[in-house]
Amino acid sequence: MENLNEKALEAHIGGKFSTKLKMEINTKDDLSLAYTPGVAEPCKEIAKDKSLVYKYTSKGNTIAVISDGTAVLGLGNIGPEAGIPVMEGKCNLFKKFANIDAIPLCIDTTDVEEIIKTCKILAPSLGGINLEDISAPRCVEIERRLIKELDIPVMHDDQHGTSIVVGAAILNCCRLTHKKMEDLVVVMSGTGAAGSNIARMLKRLGVKTIYAYNINGVVDKANYDSYDFLIKELIDDGIYDTKPNHDGTLASLIKDANVFIGVSAPNLVSVDMVKTMKDPFVFAMANPNPEISYEKAKEGGAIIAGTGRSDFPNQVNNLLAFPGIFRGALDAKAKKITEGMKMAATIALANIIKDDELNPDYILPSAFDERVVKEVSEAVKAEAKKEGICR
Amino acid sequence: MENLNEKALEAHIGGKFSTKLKMEINTKDDLSLAYTPGVAEPCKEIAKDKSLVYKYTSKGNTIAVISDGTAVLGLGNIGPEAGIPVMEGKCNLFKKFANIDAIPLCIDTTDVEEIIKTCKILAPSLGGINLEDISAPRCVEIERRLIKELDIPVMHDDQHGTSIVVGAAILNCCRLTHKKMEDLVVVMSGTGAAGSNIARMLKRLGVKTIYAYNINGVVDKANYDSYDFLIKELIDDGIYDTKPNHDGTLASLIKDANVFIGVSAPNLVSVDMVKTMKDPFVFAMANPNPEISYEKAKEGGAIIAGTGRSDFPNQVNNLLAFPGIFRGALDAKAKKITEGMKMAATIALANIIKDDELNPDYILPSAFDERVVKEVSEAVKAEAKKEGICR
Repeated sequence: MENLNEKALEAHIGGKFSTKLKMEINTKDDLSLAYTPGVAEPCKEIAKDKSLVYKYTSKGNTIAVISDGTAVLGLGNIGPEAGIPVMEGKCNLFKKFANIDAIPLCIDTTDVEEIIKTCKILAPSLGGINLEDISAPRCVEIERRLIKELDIPVMHDDQHGTSIVVGAAILNCCRLTHKKMEDLVVVMSGTGAAGSNIARMLKRLGVKTIYAYNINGVVDKANYDSYDFLIKELIDDGIYDTKPNHDGTLASLIKDANVFIGVSAPNLVSVDMVKTMKDPFVFAMANPNPEISYEKAKEGGAIIAGTGRSDFPNQVNNLLAFPGIFRGALDAKAKKITEGMKMAATIALANIIKDDELNPDYILPSAFDERVVKEVSEAVKAEAKKEGICR
Repeated sequence: MENLNEKALEAHIGGKFSTKLKMEINTKDDLSLAYTPGVAEPCKEIAKDKSLVYKYTSKGNTIAVISDGTAVLGLGNIGPEAGIPVMEGKCNLFKKFANIDAIPLCIDTTDVEEIIKTCKILAPSLGGINLEDISAPRCVEIERRLIKELDIPVMHDDQHGTSIVVGAAILNCCRLTHKKMEDLVVVMSGTGAAGSNIARMLKRLGVKTIYAYNINGVVDKANYDSYDFLIKELIDDGIYDTKPNHDGTLASLIKDANVFIGVSAPNLVSVDMVKTMKDPFVFAMANPNPEISYEKAKEGGAIIAGTGRSDFPNQVNNLLAFPGIFRGALDAKAKKITEGMKMAATIALANIIKDDELNPDYILPSAFDERVVKEVSEAVKAEAKKEGICR
């Protein structure tokens, strides 16, 4: 690890973001086309018909990765400057995996209204906005407002990326083991922005029973008034259920459940706790140290296990979702990214692995599998067209 | 022209901005370095010492070209979307000529305070800001406030680019004809953001007498109260003089002057008017149609003439200034771009043409002359270091 850290520091000298000319500029004639006087022509055309901005500029393939640096990786509120390496990395991934030109913008405000205002002010140049590493619950309000108030796709990846990949993983767990989604009893550890959206996604995919746990203990409808608006919403919407006879511990919640999903904190789940589950699927995504390691989950009898780590099987990696989601949304000329488009991405991601490839250690494809962006983006694009939300 | 316009439109399809990876991402190991978990290292280092943002991110070589679309080319207030082709072009020029990674941002507000706020909010990711095509007099206030309130270089190119290139041109006119700057009588047509800064630059370079003219007639101290704040400031600072016995016309102002400089409107100056000047230098930069054409200026007896056009000699082209200015400021780690740095750029630009190269049709180098960015940036960098305004 020491070695990786040193290599990573070394690799980051000078940063990771750069630009590239799409037109050659080697002669006066080139200048006359790319700049004055030729550039006046597309300007005049767009001034006459604003929709031509998508034809004559890079807007349609350009997104911003915007963060206020309040929830960077597992490092917390480290400020906008310290968040830049992550945003530059994310921009690289957008380019590498989906050929999207992404601009890293770490902003010097944590005020919800100022963040919303800034995104709206920047919108003319942007084909979409990927919100990133903004702390909950502010991120939820910011994303919802921008989806409503802008006509370009906006997604907060921390809320939705994991839910799409976990959704695909659980679909494939069922496919492999011939279980039905509606028969699963799921325990969610973590009720923040990521946990909330995973729970919503699983319900949309057919799961009937979801029990939730967080740092304050088991979520119980009896304590409704004590919860933040996110938990209240999920109770109101029938997403979180209350397990009868729990004793407040995660152990009492996990007993007899089929699925454990963790987006919470390291080492919350023991081998013995997994042993009390029924045919367990265990996805423990706390980063970098999961709620339970892949090995211990298997030791406890997990039929299928996964973590957020790349050094074990079934990595739950947002990289399986966000490039294809935005590629599909941009290709569709979608004005937003809907719940339906996210579900289409989930199903497409799951179906990339064919029946004869599927096995307990191959529930999710590799991020380098070229089918991933292709299949996800096509499904997202088709769904956007079907929903009639395109320009 | 029709043909150029069609070719320009064709060339702009899909836009001109794109991004490029600086690190290869082809394997899981690459991902571990460029993204999680390796990316956490530079984040943690910057969180401990914010100045390391310049070491471990692209901030130090990244600028934004920001416009509100209110004064685009000669097209006026065409809005942010229609301004994008110009900003993308400018970003290409920054990359091509100075290897600066520039991001085109056309913003959806024309409010001075909102523009200032937006720039400040975006500053953490940026090594500098090139303001562009923002209408006067708002552009003056916006630039001044940002220079004062930010610790990264900010320049509004429309205000300063032309002044630097015109300054270099007049220096070389004097060198070629063995005149002294202090003996010149200059007539400025145009008292907006560009004209004001040209006048200031010429005074700093030694010119003693400058008469000004604008759409309302000859600038006369007697009418002080009727002027906008920009003109008042230049009168207060002793930049604009009042010509005795003018009759309110540009013709009466030009008579016996040595230099005409136009940043105003087409066809204001006739051949006969040039004939009334003494050893005239005529630089007519109204775009795309100058105050007087190169040919007519010469017909009227101009020893040296220039326009903003690339199809005649002595093109006054901002491209001779802005790439080197920002390259020098970034290389120096300057916290601002000072008047001294602009003057250093002017002198360096003039001196690129050696005595034995200088002739009436070669007063300014070509933008493709590789000496330009090199000499200008080195002079700007040296001046910044000398002024002690660097990080």
